[in-house]
Amino acid sequence: MHKVLVVMGSDSDLPKLKPCLETLNDYGVEYAAHVCSAHRTPETAHELAASAQDKGYGVIIAAAGLAAHLAGVLASFTTVPVIGLPIAGGALNGLDALYAMVQMPPGIPVATVAIDGAKNAALLAIQILALSEEDLSRQLKEARQEMAASVKKKDQKLQEELNAYA
Amino acid sequence: MHKVLVVMGSDSDLPKLKPCLETLNDYGVEYAAHVCSAHRTPETAHELAASAQDKGYGVIIAAAGLAAHLAGVLASFTTVPVIGLPIAGGALNGLDALYAMVQMPPGIPVATVAIDGAKNAALLAIQILALSEEDLSRQLKEARQEMAASVKKKDQKLQEELNAYA
Amino acid sequence: MHKVLVVMGSDSDLPKLKPCLETLNDYGVEYAAHVCSAHRTPETAHELAASAQDKGYGVIIAAAGLAAHLAGVLASFTTVPVIGLPIAGGALNGLDALYAMVQMPPGIPVATVAIDGAKNAALLAIQILALSEEDLSRQLKEARQEMAASVKKKDQKLQEELNAYA
Amino acid sequence: MHKVLVVMGSDSDLPKLKPCLETLNDYGVEYAAHVCSAHRTPETAHELAASAQDKGYGVIIAAAGLAAHLAGVLASFTTVPVIGLPIAGGALNGLDALYAMVQMPPGIPVATVAIDGAKNAALLAIQILALSEEDLSRQLKEARQEMAASVKKKDQKLQEELNAYA
Amino acid sequence: MHKVLVVMGSDSDLPKLKPCLETLNDYGVEYAAHVCSAHRTPETAHELAASAQDKGYGVIIAAAGLAAHLAGVLASFTTVPVIGLPIAGGALNGLDALYAMVQMPPGIPVATVAIDGAKNAALLAIQILALSEEDLSRQLKEARQEMAASVKKKDQKLQEELNAYA
Amino acid sequence: MHKVLVVMGSDSDLPKLKPCLETLNDYGVEYAAHVCSAHRTPETAHELAASAQDKGYGVIIAAAGLAAHLAGVLASFTTVPVIGLPIAGGALNGLDALYAMVQMPPGIPVATVAIDGAKNAALLAIQILALSEEDLSRQLKEARQEMAASVKKKDQKLQEELNAYA
Amino acid sequence: MHKVLVVMGSDSDLPKLKPCLETLNDYGVEYAAHVCSAHRTPETAHELAASAQDKGYGVIIAAAGLAAHLAGVLASFTTVPVIGLPIAGGALNGLDALYAMVQMPPGIPVATVAIDGAKNAALLAIQILALSEEDLSRQLKEARQEMAASVKKKDQKLQEELNAYA
Amino acid sequence: MHKVLVVMGSDSDLPKLKPCLETLNDYGVEYAAHVCSAHRTPETAHELAASAQDKGYGVIIAAAGLAAHLAGVLASFTTVPVIGLPIAGGALNGLDALYAMVQMPPGIPVATVAIDGAKNAALLAIQILALSEEDLSRQLKEARQEMAASVKKKDQKLQEELNAYA
Repeated sequence: MHKVLVVMGSDSDLPKLKPCLETLNDYGVEYAAHVCSAHRTPETAHELAASAQDKGYGVIIAAAGLAAHLAGVLASFTTVPVIGLPIAGGALNGLDALYAMVQMPPGIPVATVAIDGAKNAALLAIQILALSEEDLSRQLKEARQEMAASVKKKDQKLQEELNAYA
Repeated sequence: MHKVLVVMGSDSDLPKLKPCLETLNDYGVEYAAHVCSAHRTPETAHELAASAQDKGYGVIIAAAGLAAHLAGVLASFTTVPVIGLPIAGGALNGLDALYAMVQMPPGIPVATVAIDGAKNAALLAIQILALSEEDLSRQLKEARQEMAASVKKKDQKLQEELNAYA
Repeated sequence: MHKVLVVMGSDSDLPKLKPCLETLNDYGVEYAAHVCSAHRTPETAHELAASAQDKGYGVIIAAAGLAAHLAGVLASFTTVPVIGLPIAGGALNGLDALYAMVQMPPGIPVATVAIDGAKNAALLAIQILALSEEDLSRQLKEARQEMAASVKKKDQKLQEELNAYA
Repeated sequence: MHKVLVVMGSDSDLPKLKPCLETLNDYGVEYAAHVCSAHRTPETAHELAASAQDKGYGVIIAAAGLAAHLAGVLASFTTVPVIGLPIAGGALNGLDALYAMVQMPPGIPVATVAIDGAKNAALLAIQILALSEEDLSRQLKEARQEMAASVKKKDQKLQEELNAYA
Repeated sequence: MHKVLVVMGSDSDLPKLKPCLETLNDYGVEYAAHVCSAHRTPETAHELAASAQDKGYGVIIAAAGLAAHLAGVLASFTTVPVIGLPIAGGALNGLDALYAMVQMPPGIPVATVAIDGAKNAALLAIQILALSEEDLSRQLKEARQEMAASVKKKDQKLQEELNAYA
Repeated sequence: MHKVLVVMGSDSDLPKLKPCLETLNDYGVEYAAHVCSAHRTPETAHELAASAQDKGYGVIIAAAGLAAHLAGVLASFTTVPVIGLPIAGGALNGLDALYAMVQMPPGIPVATVAIDGAKNAALLAIQILALSEEDLSRQLKEARQEMAASVKKKDQKLQEELNAYA
Repeated sequence: MHKVLVVMGSDSDLPKLKPCLETLNDYGVEYAAHVCSAHRTPETAHELAASAQDKGYGVIIAAAGLAAHLAGVLASFTTVPVIGLPIAGGALNGLDALYAMVQMPPGIPVATVAIDGAKNAALLAIQILALSEEDLSRQLKEARQEMAASVKKKDQKLQEELNAYA
Repeated sequence: MHKVLVVMGSDSDLPKLKPCLETLNDYGVEYAAHVCSAHRTPETAHELAASAQDKGYGVIIAAAGLAAHLAGVLASFTTVPVIGLPIAGGALNGLDALYAMVQMPPGIPVATVAIDGAKNAALLAIQILALSEEDLSRQLKEARQEMAASVKKKDQKLQEELNAYA
């Protein structure tokens, strides 16, 4: 099975990435996580991306804030799909990171998810891997059912509260 | 090999999707393309997405403008990866479509590419399929080399122009 | 008399919806409230909207944040008027929800109110129902007079403060 | 049957309102249309709104651009539902009009539709009137079916084009 | 001497208006202040503006948040200059109020100052009144000198801190 | 009577200023107009502003685009009211000019009007001068009546068109 | 004397760069210009930047649009000052490029100029080189005087037009 | 060696400027720092900028918030490179300051860094001075290596945490 490579631009992004790492764990997807800055360690970024496919990574998740070049820089050195996770922070609160990730020029796509959407970054990676991993596909479907059940349970709880309120 | 399902919210989006369809053709990726509106034909959207995996689609590309719900609606009925392609148009020129695609809540990701980034939507789909199709992977790498060569050729042409100019 | 169907995308939206539910209560308008996600429980959303008219609902209020598809999804399954209530939250603080609700394409309108404008969502629903309910119309007019009186009372209090200040 | 009162802030808005007036005509809904500026003819605005209910208007549609106060000003003099239609124009291209319409303070709602969303303004008005007009309700449902059929026809045409293209 | 009429859309705006009222006091400019909502008490707004000139007001300052129509509504009933003071608040934090005040259509200007710029609203009013009040003009010039002196004093303090720091 | 000093940052702004100059002419207000850049001719800007009051100018209108410092720079050298007229242009289409004019810090206000709102800049200047010029005040009131009459005439024309259309 | 290295992300940017190249020519500053994409030719970008200092370049000007990573990528491989020139284009018209250039994280600055501000990119480079080139410093001061003279000439022309107009 | 002149629009900006002053200290670059407002002390601004070159300043750093004219005003009186540092604050949180600094018209560039990017303002100044100061150039390269080492150390720490977590 392909593994997932998670790269964060700064160790301060780690708390926001927790839901990503936990989701990968929950699905039993093997991953590596690295702190690597597009600007401060550009050569490491180059190496990580260029070697990703050979090391068995099937998806790269790149999390960064501000002028978030990390996802694009990694994507320029590999044809493995790169998921961009814009991190909120600074005066523009992630709008800069969103634009810097999603508006990639033709030729080098970045699959961008919501600002601080760490869980969805993991789920998207898993959905990609699930194309050739039936077990992941099954887990994803179960999770969808659990999500639906959880929403319905919350709805039932709301009905009880509304009744009590009436 | 998995196929790609391309869904556009309106037939008026077709011209903007041409680079997407051409790229899929260039790589020899089989695809189906449909006009299907999240709001005007919600049941068709449901069917298209819910049956996508069984019909052999490995990726869905959803192109829409304005309050672009199409990608999210399709994504809610399948665990096949959905690529969101925001289409510029209307007074907000695609910013509405971008936000409506990328800011998905936890649980249902949409892999969003640039506004009007039709070629990248196709390339991202191909990168995803290439995980289990060595030939696509090879083509992608060749294309990267061609892109690099093309940029270098343009640089040479620039040098000639600058020399003529000097 | 028609009832109002209030749908929220997440139970975390409930506190922000309180002024909506209280206003409906104050006017003696019967309502049901449900947690239902456009993406996590799309089939429930379908059912709720498709059955709304037969169950006697005259207006639907849909509250959601982020890429808020809920109002549009409900509207696609019914011709009962749907009021969209964008909920602030996340890095874009409701601007995403506003755009995703208000910028609906031709054919399926959503009557959008202010971000976090829960009270106005209820009042708009009541104004719609009041077209065929004289008593609601009377109450609305009284409330307008009370609002005006309340503003005038606040103005008087201000005059006293300014006098004390002088 | 209630009539619809259409008010536009400037006669230059008329071309953009055509789809609104045509839709009202198509459904056989009686309407009056007036040019009336919130700022240049505030007293006429006051009169139009204050007398709307007595004259049999069930919905008011207010179209305006720039700092679009018209919808809010009309809404302050009536409890008849007011639909705000922001008109694109000027350097901010309708974003100013959208904010000035949708962000109404608690107490006086404006049901805002998309920038330049003239057809949806009419449809929303019709959906409101349809609550007590079975015939309008029937027409709306038929129109939904026609819209769906039209989308499907466009999809068929696309299939033919793609076949020809293949 | 002309007086200044200060109108605020809500009594909750009073704390933000304090620097405005204090500045008018400091310059010995007589003023009245009222809570008056463009939407909840439109007739009072009409009266306040229409009678302003006869009552001796030379400038109106209108403070409001959200879809801030107050300044425009007052301006539509008087030719006395109206200063618009957008108040930050709500999800858009005053950007809505700024657009709703400054983007007035041709014919009815509103002199808009910064979001929450209460002191500048007062100073602008005083600069206007100073055209025919030499004493105000003198005070304004002294205040400019005091401001300059205060900045220079802060600079000196900074030099001391930097020296201590060195 | 006070005169008006019109300053534009570039001669390319002149066409957009025509409605301003014509309006001043229509009201018989004497004015001077100058091309003067805050950045290219800062000393001329200093002189123009510093001498404005002594030369009999009662209001300064400053028109500029991009990072429009002109109004603020002039305002820093005079206590004569400065009206800022943001000019649309460049990639941000006047939003930069609006922010650079309206968001002045406490102490130095700029009375900002709409982007490209040249006519309102003149009207605001005239409203300010009218405080001590009864004739201007009378003209402004007549113009308001003419505007109202013009709107009503447009409304009548619309009624005729609608009748013809019916 | 140091030379200037001009790098553009695409040959389509060349027309927008003309004022930059002409200005460098006018001042007699030697430059090289290259087409080099941060994403399509990342290794060339690396080489260009890493070798810039040794080749005698004193400033790098990087022009790019969309998610404009070029300036930041070059800056990560050199300590030579990098000037970022955001190019307008695409649905966001350069706002994406501005944010992606100016919002660089601590450690790797990019000196950003206005969107499409090609002439200022050159002038900034020249101002930097002028620190150790007296002749450039002299030219810059002369150019400032010429600019001022040109503005004054335009002002004189305006006076003549206004006189003719009067 | 050239010195750096740091100018802040208000003493309240000092805490945000600390990383700038500390970085200059760390590199042994001599600097002066002043509180000087473009609007409250325009003549001091004029003097500071006009005399900068003669006093041996090679770069000016101008920090300001809101309608941040300071950098542009200083730049208009000198050909020494001016670095603009937009300071977050007020309702628009620095977006106004960013636009007011970066969108300078042709002729007078401002080298703008990120909102609150104080450290980068210093580093950019040092990179400029390093063109003729080999020792600074050496320090910058060492700092780059230290930054890279620090990122790698953080990555190692992350690996340890992930191992502990596994």
